[in-house]
Amino acid sequence: MIRITDPADPRLDDVRDLKTMDNTKGLIFGEGPIVAGRVIDSRYPLRCVVGFEKKLDTFFAQREEEGFPPVDVPVYAVTRELLAEVAGYDMHRGLIAVAGKAPERAVDTLLDARTLVVLEGVGDHENIGAIFRNAAGMGVDGVLLGAGTADPLYRRSVRVSMGHVLRLPFAHLDGTVTTWQRSLEQLREAGFHLVSLTPDDKAEHLADALIDASGAPYEKIALLVGGEGPGLTEHAMRATDIRARIPMANGTDSLNVATSAAIAFYERDRSFSR
Amino acid sequence: MIRITDPADPRLDDVRDLKTMDNTKGLIFGEGPIVAGRVIDSRYPLRCVVGFEKKLDTFFAQREEEGFPPVDVPVYAVTRELLAEVAGYDMHRGLIAVAGKAPERAVDTLLDARTLVVLEGVGDHENIGAIFRNAAGMGVDGVLLGAGTADPLYRRSVRVSMGHVLRLPFAHLDGTVTTWQRSLEQLREAGFHLVSLTPDDKAEHLADALIDASGAPYEKIALLVGGEGPGLTEHAMRATDIRARIPMANGTDSLNVATSAAIAFYERDRSFSR
Repeated sequence: MIRITDPADPRLDDVRDLKTMDNTKGLIFGEGPIVAGRVIDSRYPLRCVVGFEKKLDTFFAQREEEGFPPVDVPVYAVTRELLAEVAGYDMHRGLIAVAGKAPERAVDTLLDARTLVVLEGVGDHENIGAIFRNAAGMGVDGVLLGAGTADPLYRRSVRVSMGHVLRLPFAHLDGTVTTWQRSLEQLREAGFHLVSLTPDDKAEHLADALIDASGAPYEKIALLVGGEGPGLTEHAMRATDIRARIPMANGTDSLNVATSAAIAFYERDRSFSR
Repeated sequence: MIRITDPADPRLDDVRDLKTMDNTKGLIFGEGPIVAGRVIDSRYPLRCVVGFEKKLDTFFAQREEEGFPPVDVPVYAVTRELLAEVAGYDMHRGLIAVAGKAPERAVDTLLDARTLVVLEGVGDHENIGAIFRNAAGMGVDGVLLGAGTADPLYRRSVRVSMGHVLRLPFAHLDGTVTTWQRSLEQLREAGFHLVSLTPDDKAEHLADALIDASGAPYEKIALLVGGEGPGLTEHAMRATDIRARIPMANGTDSLNVATSAAIAFYERDRSFSR
């Protein structure tokens, strides 16, 4: 552990002006023990860990106790005041792990999944993070990112996902709106039943859309969910096998995209487990 | 419509310093056409509507077209700059409706509900708002607020709920932790089956907890959900009939409270509709 007392020390450049520059650095940031641990244990190349000395001591002692190997990157101990000055905000969680990007996975590396979620136009980083957190929590195997979808590796997405964006495999569909048909063809050829989630009350009840005519769950399912506001494009929905709805009371608004997706993940798990 | 051009005009005091003073005024604020409309149509006494002239024109013209009666309170037209100066932030939604508080409902006015949700220690205003939005959307009839639960009428809760805190009935349980047993007794006497939501994997699957031995949904259910982090207290859970879980994958974190509640509302609706 290396103590740094000069805010201008270039070894702190990874976390400099983090408040405003976080997403222009091309790096991945995980704050707090849980998320930092997930950054460290991810496939992304760790660069450094920065934090308050006591927090770092506790963090690494606990990891050692749990059998994790030590990190082979610099660990910088700083005061809370110094870190606030460098990063531009008070990092009350006390430590941050920084990693670089890694080559993206290709779509075909995800095709042995049982359940995938496919996002179209989900531009809000908190929603992306929440979708990853819920997907990981409820047994979804991976995420495919279509057109207009925000970067899951942005700091806010990482935080809201509780670091699950670093654990749950994802890939970008070769994705302009005009290639939905082709993108989804690849999933269909791999045996996926393609389900659009929509508030349209002419769609099938979600529970019916996830089971076949004999009442058994489809072996492989890809769930498409659309962005805040507009939802899925007609173009995307037309390329799927079925449109599914979560029943809504009259006079209410459609659910938030992450909430809808969570309910679909639950129903998918339910179709197998009961 | 009254044009105001002086930022010091006392008729704008309801929205003065809203950015920082919103929750100390004892008032209810609804920004934007949808939420402002729900403030106007609520049981809370409307005080004024403030906005940009064009936005107000469009808003009231559309309401008239849809058959809503005109408002009988002052409507103040201001410029965007003036409103930003008075409120302390740029109100890009263009209009805001302000109402006063009204006497709270008593718990016994909610007891003819089929489905209630009971909150314990849900202190986050966004989670409260999301729970109301989801509850309204999926047919829950009312919300009971237990100890440690934040005020649903705070500006942020109103916004996140899309105004549903003003439509969905709620009441405060006579609520210190020490009276859970008694508070819930009143629900049990009214015929409610009391269900705790918990991540505990020894609990029943949510779907099983909502149906009786014959497989039929309980006629009346009260769903208890606990705060971020700790979840429900043991004290509260002990006073319920059954503990229900949403199955989670290994090594993941429990779901956000509003997401868990949304899944429970979905399962409750599902138990009736299918």
